[in-house]
Amino acid sequence: MSDAQFKGVIPPVVIPLDANRQIDLVAFERTINRMIEAGVDGLFFLGSSGEVAFLTDAQRYHVLQEAVAIVGGRVPVLAGIIDMETLRVIDQAKRAEGFGVDGLVATAPFYALGGPREVERHFRVIRENSNLPLFAYDLPVCVHTKLDPTMLVKLGTEGVLQGVKDSSGDDVAFRWLCLQNKDAGHPLQLFTGHEVVVDGAYLSGADGSVPGLANLDPVSYVEQWRAYQAGDWERVRQIQDHLAHLMYIVRNVDATVGFGAGVGAFKTALWQMGVFNTNQMREPVQPLVGKDVETIVSVLKENGLMDAEAPVRA
Amino acid sequence: MSDAQFKGVIPPVVIPLDANRQIDLVAFERTINRMIEAGVDGLFFLGSSGEVAFLTDAQRYHVLQEAVAIVGGRVPVLAGIIDMETLRVIDQAKRAEGFGVDGLVATAPFYALGGPREVERHFRVIRENSNLPLFAYDLPVCVHTKLDPTMLVKLGTEGVLQGVKDSSGDDVAFRWLCLQNKDAGHPLQLFTGHEVVVDGAYLSGADGSVPGLANLDPVSYVEQWRAYQAGDWERVRQIQDHLAHLMYIVRNVDATVGFGAGVGAFKTALWQMGVFNTNQMREPVQPLVGKDVETIVSVLKENGLMDAEAPVRA
Amino acid sequence: MSDAQFKGVIPPVVIPLDANRQIDLVAFERTINRMIEAGVDGLFFLGSSGEVAFLTDAQRYHVLQEAVAIVGGRVPVLAGIIDMETLRVIDQAKRAEGFGVDGLVATAPFYALGGPREVERHFRVIRENSNLPLFAYDLPVCVHTKLDPTMLVKLGTEGVLQGVKDSSGDDVAFRWLCLQNKDAGHPLQLFTGHEVVVDGAYLSGADGSVPGLANLDPVSYVEQWRAYQAGDWERVRQIQDHLAHLMYIVRNVDATVGFGAGVGAFKTALWQMGVFNTNQMREPVQPLVGKDVETIVSVLKENGLMDAEAPVRA
Amino acid sequence: MSDAQFKGVIPPVVIPLDANRQIDLVAFERTINRMIEAGVDGLFFLGSSGEVAFLTDAQRYHVLQEAVAIVGGRVPVLAGIIDMETLRVIDQAKRAEGFGVDGLVATAPFYALGGPREVERHFRVIRENSNLPLFAYDLPVCVHTKLDPTMLVKLGTEGVLQGVKDSSGDDVAFRWLCLQNKDAGHPLQLFTGHEVVVDGAYLSGADGSVPGLANLDPVSYVEQWRAYQAGDWERVRQIQDHLAHLMYIVRNVDATVGFGAGVGAFKTALWQMGVFNTNQMREPVQPLVGKDVETIVSVLKENGLMDAEAPVRA
Repeated sequence: MSDAQFKGVIPPVVIPLDANRQIDLVAFERTINRMIEAGVDGLFFLGSSGEVAFLTDAQRYHVLQEAVAIVGGRVPVLAGIIDMETLRVIDQAKRAEGFGVDGLVATAPFYALGGPREVERHFRVIRENSNLPLFAYDLPVCVHTKLDPTMLVKLGTEGVLQGVKDSSGDDVAFRWLCLQNKDAGHPLQLFTGHEVVVDGAYLSGADGSVPGLANLDPVSYVEQWRAYQAGDWERVRQIQDHLAHLMYIVRNVDATVGFGAGVGAFKTALWQMGVFNTNQMREPVQPLVGKDVETIVSVLKENGLMDAEAPVRA
Repeated sequence: MSDAQFKGVIPPVVIPLDANRQIDLVAFERTINRMIEAGVDGLFFLGSSGEVAFLTDAQRYHVLQEAVAIVGGRVPVLAGIIDMETLRVIDQAKRAEGFGVDGLVATAPFYALGGPREVERHFRVIRENSNLPLFAYDLPVCVHTKLDPTMLVKLGTEGVLQGVKDSSGDDVAFRWLCLQNKDAGHPLQLFTGHEVVVDGAYLSGADGSVPGLANLDPVSYVEQWRAYQAGDWERVRQIQDHLAHLMYIVRNVDATVGFGAGVGAFKTALWQMGVFNTNQMREPVQPLVGKDVETIVSVLKENGLMDAEAPVRA
Repeated sequence: MSDAQFKGVIPPVVIPLDANRQIDLVAFERTINRMIEAGVDGLFFLGSSGEVAFLTDAQRYHVLQEAVAIVGGRVPVLAGIIDMETLRVIDQAKRAEGFGVDGLVATAPFYALGGPREVERHFRVIRENSNLPLFAYDLPVCVHTKLDPTMLVKLGTEGVLQGVKDSSGDDVAFRWLCLQNKDAGHPLQLFTGHEVVVDGAYLSGADGSVPGLANLDPVSYVEQWRAYQAGDWERVRQIQDHLAHLMYIVRNVDATVGFGAGVGAFKTALWQMGVFNTNQMREPVQPLVGKDVETIVSVLKENGLMDAEAPVRA
Repeated sequence: MSDAQFKGVIPPVVIPLDANRQIDLVAFERTINRMIEAGVDGLFFLGSSGEVAFLTDAQRYHVLQEAVAIVGGRVPVLAGIIDMETLRVIDQAKRAEGFGVDGLVATAPFYALGGPREVERHFRVIRENSNLPLFAYDLPVCVHTKLDPTMLVKLGTEGVLQGVKDSSGDDVAFRWLCLQNKDAGHPLQLFTGHEVVVDGAYLSGADGSVPGLANLDPVSYVEQWRAYQAGDWERVRQIQDHLAHLMYIVRNVDATVGFGAGVGAFKTALWQMGVFNTNQMREPVQPLVGKDVETIVSVLKENGLMDAEAPVRA
């Protein structure tokens, strides 16, 4: 197990594209620098928000190559190694390692149905095939398996897992995970991916957060983390209320559902805020247009992320 | 809309049975008094934990008659009016009203499939047929419909609903519900039924909680509520960690799943603690026995709810 | 166990209402007689299509009283005893028995979560409390539990169950149920509720069908049953294709989803065909209007259930 | 659109491994030849049963290279191009094309959530990037999206899709798909993957089947297809009853669930029958052992797939 310790705010990086749906390196550097300058504690590439499912392997490793170069060691870099079953995930792990990342993030196996014994073995076999710190990514909305807290703490204690990114939406299980982890001597570093209720995860004892919304407002998440470290809970919740309001950008998208609405809204917001140059999406997802863009701009203005007088970009 | 305001800790009351599976009135009075003396702010009868699905109508109204008499006005009484579709729920509402309860709690319609327009109309038609404060009970695990925050706040603003008991497990939607309710002038009183993460709900701005686990440890939930009112968040979370540990009683039940494991564990704990005289359940559920009882006793002892030397009751 | 044997086409009867949402006894007699005259082998009242979830107990037994009187012994009458958990179902069973029905139909318990041991015990306890033939109603879309074929055949062999009405949509499990039942000496009478693929159920060895669509076109279902008895599979499938086309009435409803679309379309069709006098629904469901009615009329005309020149009733 | 027409029995080929979990080419040739000699009309490689989710890209294309060589043009070869989202699927398509296969099979996009407009565009974009006949693989149990019959027929009419492999388990939707396809001039070739109820799919008008169980008993599926072509429905259903009995091999596996139980049982049966040399599985799945193997052998003997006196191989 690595001696590395991960904590704090580690945003999953949303990828800017140009009009031809190719990665826009100028905007990529801008968004990375903007988050690092805001004080984030790490960056997570090739997560769900980072389009990992939509990229060919060639595109994935182009992203990773550029990301590692731009970050330049200023903060640790985590890389998603997202694929269906164990051998494919190991293939991704070996390639990601070659690019000099600091940790790997893997989900439970998906597509083929399995049970708990396959899930546990999956993480063990990945561990046997890689030396980097390994995080389990608990994401039942995508992979349709919920990771069991007792299994996770066991894998932490045995040195298989470095930590967990919990995007399960199951706050009861997360509380139990935090308690069991603490009672076992804190082998795992525990992160919540639940950007709307990070404050509740901090109350539960989380070691940090991986909020997609931090692509838009990294300053607030960093300030919230510091308030948590200082024990200023009123400030923590006040910032969370602001961020929960800001997250309204994804609630009223008309055009579609799921990734196209969620990351589609993030990209549209970043475009309107001038961080991205377009709100292009990867096939088969289409960018948001018209009324959806206007609604997002309204939310950004109401929450101070855009100047009230700024025009809607087209 | 009633002028009544509901807030604080309102446990859903678990019902003690005797060896013949009839209500045990001595233990019923004991458990009610124990919670009132601990300082709870109300009591909720005929909720899911209160066996509402398992009782005939005659049994339901026997429970309500005895409950209202025992409580004797010391705290407000809420009554579940749980049935499949609107007309059946109204039948329950009219009967519950006759017993002098202070508020009604209704779920979305269930069994027959419907959509949002039926859900909204359901609550409106109940309101037209009753004068008591009406709470929406958001319980997708039982009724397979999640209530939309925007609809709930609209129904609050229009005087249809007095409040919401949220047992949805969707902490993001609960945060948005709290925010939208606050932005609308706080028409709804919002309660969480999520006993393991009440502290997170309080951070979100909840007006109170409806924790089944408070049947076992009402003192802690009351103390937590008061710490929240005093802004002492470290105390709030510390108590929550204790309660989350205590909830381990339901995690490792071997005999069955669902209600028989959850309320079965509550009844078994109350029996071992001497509050109940048996851990009997209603058909078709069987009481926990053997190893399951021993595990529960261990958890109670580890968390200070039973004396370490106390024998296991048989 | 009763000596009664059930087989053939047993439609679940859809209930006509007048403009005030009260049962329309003239139309009720008309639709019952129309089905009996077409040659159906029984009638099933208070099923899902029969609004059982929407009726108060008083309304349920009004329906049953009138139904038994109108049928007058011409065909066997089955009655749904649909309620949440065991004791409530037994209450319904005892009342239904009083009205002189020939068999009872009960689902797995619902609302409270349970497991297989509660499901099995549920049917056993109902059996201990009633002498009428008892059918298990496999309806996971409403009760969220799938009945296991092995358990069903065991309960048949032991005299607990008379048969099964399978509306599970799981044609593999139904095939296995038929095989296991046959291998056990055919203790159960097995009916499919899957009106669009009754022919496949007959190939699997079903003893009959309970098709909601037979309220519209009982003659075709009866003819299909007789073709099956005669081994004329080409005729069986040809009729099924006609019926599957006719079922398009429920596919394109815009106004809502679920029961309001499904039974709403049946009622609208029966109204347009002159069997019912309105297409009224029970609260909280609203009747279909406008474009939805027109689409249904088009399907009826294309499939020969309405005269091509007939006007749309309003 | 290709002029190729696909029909009849096209088994999804299960892959034999040696003790080191590498492809066992001797057994691979044996199982392929056994199916072709039985008279199958095509073979489908890299489907779910063909371990597509478990193979690295290098392993996938090794399978395909060997498969095309062994088949040697005796029957058409379909190849699964299973990956998460559109661009990754296109990558797989381009590689599969290079190996000389006769058609491609793609699921709806998975992992990232989407809606119907993304699903439709997904198939269109794949079509724009490949010239081979393209089949849609309807597999909600793995990809959590059900393909809409109306959309499928539209894509068939426009030349995007050649056909559908339906493993959705939704026999109502499959009936409607067959009817709509027939009414549109039969642009799609429709296959069922539902090995237990192929007879019902043939009644519905299917153009063929893709039964995993045909790896064990190809002769019966071929004979069933020919009986269907001859209109001998009693023979069709009689064979289906045999095959449904044979499928009991997967019903009582104790060790695990899902793929490890299903394909695990197929491999174990093929091993015991002498077609495969082991029952090895890919990580993280473990081969069945002990009691599970014995149960499978019993079923094989009861259904005539193994000699009654044959010993259990270890």
